[in-house]
Amino acid sequence: MKELITQKCIPCEKGAPLLTPEKLNALHPQIPEWDIIEANGTKRLRKVFRFKNFAAALAFVNQVGELAEAEFHHPTIVLDWGRAEVIWTTHKIKGLHENDVIMAARTDALI
Amino acid sequence: MKELITQKCIPCEKGAPLLTPEKLNALHPQIPEWDIIEANGTKRLRKVFRFKNFAAALAFVNQVGELAEAEFHHPTIVLDWGRAEVIWTTHKIKGLHENDVIMAARTDALI
Repeated sequence: MKELITQKCIPCEKGAPLLTPEKLNALHPQIPEWDIIEANGTKRLRKVFRFKNFAAALAFVNQVGELAEAEFHHPTIVLDWGRAEVIWTTHKIKGLHENDVIMAARTDALI
Repeated sequence: MKELITQKCIPCEKGAPLLTPEKLNALHPQIPEWDIIEANGTKRLRKVFRFKNFAAALAFVNQVGELAEAEFHHPTIVLDWGRAEVIWTTHKIKGLHENDVIMAARTDALI
């Protein structure tokens, strides 16, 4: 299997297929620290990153932002003192696309 | 009444008094667009700021971060594409201090 971290997002339009549970289970070991959560019927990938202070957490948010802009795929980020929670999902298809798993792996690689 | 926007945070330790409901009601007209919400028994000030894209929202998050670092008082910020939700509260006293109202007013002034 090609490593997720080396992959780029592909353009994803409305109607693109959601990741099947089988495919998601097969990919999850590459991003083991990401929780698969479901809210309002939409699956998301979620991970909390901890930092020594606010400035370090904000610097990470900017790194994730740079990655997001480069790939035209944007997460939700909850920034707190010493903490950044990153959530990936694909709004257009109301759930998880392979792009989200790629972005989760690439987020991990920023640290 | 001295305008909130011109004020600075004062050091706030555990045991400092919460804003009374009367004082909060008196100050609220200076930050009318901020909702007073309560979660887990803790009052917070919350406002959603909208932007034309992700980069503009992230730039605002950095402005709020700079203000937070300057005043040693830090919010929770939820960043999304074109949107930043800012939440002020004082964790040490589990609720709202006058500092939070000052920071809300100064957040508004960044725009």
